[in-house]
Amino acid sequence: MYLPYFFLFSILLALSPSSALVQDFCVADLSLPPTPAGYPCKKPSKVTADDFAFHGLAAKGNTSNIISAAVTPALDAQFPGVNGLGISILRIDLAVGGVIPLHTHPAGSELVVVIEGTILVGFISSFDNVVYIKTLNKGDIMVFPQGLVHFQINTGKTPALAFASFGTQNPGLQIIDFALFKNDFPTELVNKVTFLDVAQIKKLKGVLGGTN
Amino acid sequence: MYLPYFFLFSILLALSPSSALVQDFCVADLSLPPTPAGYPCKKPSKVTADDFAFHGLAAKGNTSNIISAAVTPALDAQFPGVNGLGISILRIDLAVGGVIPLHTHPAGSELVVVIEGTILVGFISSFDNVVYIKTLNKGDIMVFPQGLVHFQINTGKTPALAFASFGTQNPGLQIIDFALFKNDFPTELVNKVTFLDVAQIKKLKGVLGGTN
Amino acid sequence: MYLPYFFLFSILLALSPSSALVQDFCVADLSLPPTPAGYPCKKPSKVTADDFAFHGLAAKGNTSNIISAAVTPALDAQFPGVNGLGISILRIDLAVGGVIPLHTHPAGSELVVVIEGTILVGFISSFDNVVYIKTLNKGDIMVFPQGLVHFQINTGKTPALAFASFGTQNPGLQIIDFALFKNDFPTELVNKVTFLDVAQIKKLKGVLGGTN
Amino acid sequence: MYLPYFFLFSILLALSPSSALVQDFCVADLSLPPTPAGYPCKKPSKVTADDFAFHGLAAKGNTSNIISAAVTPALDAQFPGVNGLGISILRIDLAVGGVIPLHTHPAGSELVVVIEGTILVGFISSFDNVVYIKTLNKGDIMVFPQGLVHFQINTGKTPALAFASFGTQNPGLQIIDFALFKNDFPTELVNKVTFLDVAQIKKLKGVLGGTN
Amino acid sequence: MYLPYFFLFSILLALSPSSALVQDFCVADLSLPPTPAGYPCKKPSKVTADDFAFHGLAAKGNTSNIISAAVTPALDAQFPGVNGLGISILRIDLAVGGVIPLHTHPAGSELVVVIEGTILVGFISSFDNVVYIKTLNKGDIMVFPQGLVHFQINTGKTPALAFASFGTQNPGLQIIDFALFKNDFPTELVNKVTFLDVAQIKKLKGVLGGTN
Amino acid sequence: MYLPYFFLFSILLALSPSSALVQDFCVADLSLPPTPAGYPCKKPSKVTADDFAFHGLAAKGNTSNIISAAVTPALDAQFPGVNGLGISILRIDLAVGGVIPLHTHPAGSELVVVIEGTILVGFISSFDNVVYIKTLNKGDIMVFPQGLVHFQINTGKTPALAFASFGTQNPGLQIIDFALFKNDFPTELVNKVTFLDVAQIKKLKGVLGGTN
Repeated sequence: MYLPYFFLFSILLALSPSSALVQDFCVADLSLPPTPAGYPCKKPSKVTADDFAFHGLAAKGNTSNIISAAVTPALDAQFPGVNGLGISILRIDLAVGGVIPLHTHPAGSELVVVIEGTILVGFISSFDNVVYIKTLNKGDIMVFPQGLVHFQINTGKTPALAFASFGTQNPGLQIIDFALFKNDFPTELVNKVTFLDVAQIKKLKGVLGGTN
Repeated sequence: MYLPYFFLFSILLALSPSSALVQDFCVADLSLPPTPAGYPCKKPSKVTADDFAFHGLAAKGNTSNIISAAVTPALDAQFPGVNGLGISILRIDLAVGGVIPLHTHPAGSELVVVIEGTILVGFISSFDNVVYIKTLNKGDIMVFPQGLVHFQINTGKTPALAFASFGTQNPGLQIIDFALFKNDFPTELVNKVTFLDVAQIKKLKGVLGGTN
Repeated sequence: MYLPYFFLFSILLALSPSSALVQDFCVADLSLPPTPAGYPCKKPSKVTADDFAFHGLAAKGNTSNIISAAVTPALDAQFPGVNGLGISILRIDLAVGGVIPLHTHPAGSELVVVIEGTILVGFISSFDNVVYIKTLNKGDIMVFPQGLVHFQINTGKTPALAFASFGTQNPGLQIIDFALFKNDFPTELVNKVTFLDVAQIKKLKGVLGGTN
Repeated sequence: MYLPYFFLFSILLALSPSSALVQDFCVADLSLPPTPAGYPCKKPSKVTADDFAFHGLAAKGNTSNIISAAVTPALDAQFPGVNGLGISILRIDLAVGGVIPLHTHPAGSELVVVIEGTILVGFISSFDNVVYIKTLNKGDIMVFPQGLVHFQINTGKTPALAFASFGTQNPGLQIIDFALFKNDFPTELVNKVTFLDVAQIKKLKGVLGGTN
Repeated sequence: MYLPYFFLFSILLALSPSSALVQDFCVADLSLPPTPAGYPCKKPSKVTADDFAFHGLAAKGNTSNIISAAVTPALDAQFPGVNGLGISILRIDLAVGGVIPLHTHPAGSELVVVIEGTILVGFISSFDNVVYIKTLNKGDIMVFPQGLVHFQINTGKTPALAFASFGTQNPGLQIIDFALFKNDFPTELVNKVTFLDVAQIKKLKGVLGGTN
Repeated sequence: MYLPYFFLFSILLALSPSSALVQDFCVADLSLPPTPAGYPCKKPSKVTADDFAFHGLAAKGNTSNIISAAVTPALDAQFPGVNGLGISILRIDLAVGGVIPLHTHPAGSELVVVIEGTILVGFISSFDNVVYIKTLNKGDIMVFPQGLVHFQINTGKTPALAFASFGTQNPGLQIIDFALFKNDFPTELVNKVTFLDVAQIKKLKGVLGGTN
């Protein structure tokens, strides 16, 4: 088949007029206010390959803390390339005995893959309060259905590493202890809505810096 | 379990870096142009509990009008807290004999709950033009599938009150009579597309302030 | 305009051939297994107006229990008419001092309208653990964003009644205390993922019938 | 680059194990009950090219009827290949003076393209009852936003042909006159919810075969 | 039924307060940055009927090019009225022997209707690489499932015309040859990821103006 | 706070009647036909923790093949627990020089995280055929927007391992070479729709086992 040069110019005109199919992607312009569907898009002409790659998960998180754990996010706010694409990821580092406390992701299901170590994971159904628990080793995966409380614990003898993916650019992260104790939620109200003893609440508020 | 204070600071850093999980909610900034998914979000730092509550449905609507009825909305435009959350509500007051004329909500299904009185409700299927009619009393509910014409009439002997919820922040509201008679829709065209007699059209245009 | 009878038959044929626009609605056939989008549909020919109405919320729930509260649902399982329509509702009865304990709806935002009494409501953001609290009176509404922990308490001097709507046919309901204490979730694990004292956990497990 | 045969077999195994990526498409199995998201899928092994093509729109519809118009659908029920793909189409034939009466599509927006003739089209907004009217000629297109009442009239001197596309496999079709007059909707109720005179209602019920 | 004028004003107030149901439609304001859900909306007060109609597909595209074909789009960028409505359309002109080369629409399924001539169409499944091929004549339609490679060829003896609809305001258009040869994609990489011979790659890069 | 045992039973009744909030999750019953939204759900009573975990990605794929690569999927068909949850994952093993040839995922965006080795990745935009290329090392991530052609190559000196996540339970996988050469797609047609020389086509058909 013979394709003379001068004709080709016409193909291009014919097939991509002034058109602007700008929505192959929508790299977030974080300087503009977000909408319910995500951030406004950066101009395509200013987008480069660097917008679609992220180096921030390469380093181990600092697990020298009380939970011996670290979560490093690559959600829309850190990694604007995922804006509008319905996907994001977190790095989870767990020292020996490290724990990601009971939490939910209000806006998406999570799929965790273990890269190093042994992690005990679990979630609780809302239907009948069944606890689904599994011990995961290297290469194993687990899915946590949207919005349900779940947790991860390093039960192995070595540090553990995992990646958690989400089918949304920002799943949210609500740690139950933080919601109860790391703010000015009045102790009396916490008691009423959780049945926890006042002494217990005050103890954890003390630890987490909560007041009231 | 012992949780020393100084360690906790590290948890916070580890779990919520510069991150900005701003999309737990997206209170509408009505000063900016909306998008197909709703309004841009107000800055989280300016959001207060008042953004999520609304007092405007507490008062009875004025039913001293021709339909003896009033609809008071709490949609995104009145209640910016629902923006992006896929939910909204209307208050319906019906004096004795009051009527919400035949209408559709182009963008969502409706679920009505009767709080006071007796309301005759109905909708018509598009499939085979079946009329589904029910008389609802206090505490009864009815669902009207998306986009189908429906109506509500107070058939009781006392004023009626109901709330209508929607699975969208703005379901729209198209009253068939208004679409036909309360504008400059040419009488000849209305006749052609509805088979209604010209005299009938002119009469209702007269009443509703329509022209042409 | 003159419309002879014999012609009309042709309109009908022309406009609704064998077509079967069966999806004006999709009343759930609860006898078949559900799918991620809801239940399979009952045959339209067997659907009646009764499928779209529900009487089960008319009666006050029994609040003679430890939380002095009752939740009566009209979700897809109780009210098959909402299947596929993206909406549902719950009735909430609260005796004086009654409490709906801290909980989430994993799959949808909630809009509550107070019908009688005074209710203190609140939710906590995941972003920065802010507690948004409001006291609602008759006719007031509040929206709780999807998946976030929230609660309702009757702080008035009379029984309270409210209706909670959702932009989904089944929002789920996860009560944090039930997830932690009303099952066989091992005490040691609960301790690890919540920092609660073992004694506190055992106490509440005892109360709620949990084991382990 | 050299690609020995025997190695290729391994690629195939590696890349498409027992996997069954069955959801490139989901041709409707109309013998099974539909779900809110569409019909269950026919087995891929029984799908042929014929499932994705449809010949039923090739013939002119019969416009020898009272509206001098015909609508021939290729929705999911007629063209099972569109199931799950979020698209469908109708053929519209309009004799001189032919009219598609005022109607809505409860579940989708419409995009009409004129192939032959001249068509006057219009829709009415719900927001402020504005009538948007255009005369379209061959090759012109018009979009009707979801759920809003609209109409088409052949105002030319020759038969007209158009195709109407939808961003859903089944947009529904509710003709207002049929909803009001072509069923057993009690005349008294029609009067109450439309303000139309009883005589007018009875006249059109007579024409359209309605009762009550 | 008697409807005195002075009462009507009350209806209007009652039913459409300050409300602003602005989202019947959302005509794109192309001067603002788009979001993942589309462009921000033009003010309703500036919208006219012309925003919903488009004349740009009326003229035959110029097929005097190497593929003897032309594609004329009416997507969001050309036809802002479709913004947010989940629908769009393209005009396809094919001279005798004209070809729309192998391509995908990354974001939507396509439904093509043939208006003039004879077109050979085909797509390939990803599941098992089955080629689904059909010859379409005037009035025939074909659906191409989302994202799958497909093509159209005029195999008749006269020019062909077709319209392709999409269930999205911008389906995207990726022509495989352009992705491989009409850019600076290094020849060595193209060879590695396609198994095509270097000479073949260089030949087509030459024709299409590619480099490297 | 005092919680007498006998009262607790009432809470449970009050809060979880016969209700059946079965849709916390929807583990696929692969024995039933899928729907456009996924497979019907397995009965909750038969679901165990094993349904949410998957061991099949733990083992290295066999890369002793022509592309020196292996893809091991955990999509809905292999891992029924993800059904309805909008997420899935693949394991990618690349020997030195290994290649995942040019391909698309018709139904979802991909986020790849490199676990071992060095991988050159790239995708091409449809808008203007820009090639976005990056070299990723251990811990780096890249996102490939939905439906666009992309590839991965091990350009390091050691085997590489990566995991690719998707915001859907089944993204599909269309390898361009397989679509063109590994089936009975007639050589003449392939030539017409790709401009590739007949000899080149026949050569690759020979290698990949294609016919015609």
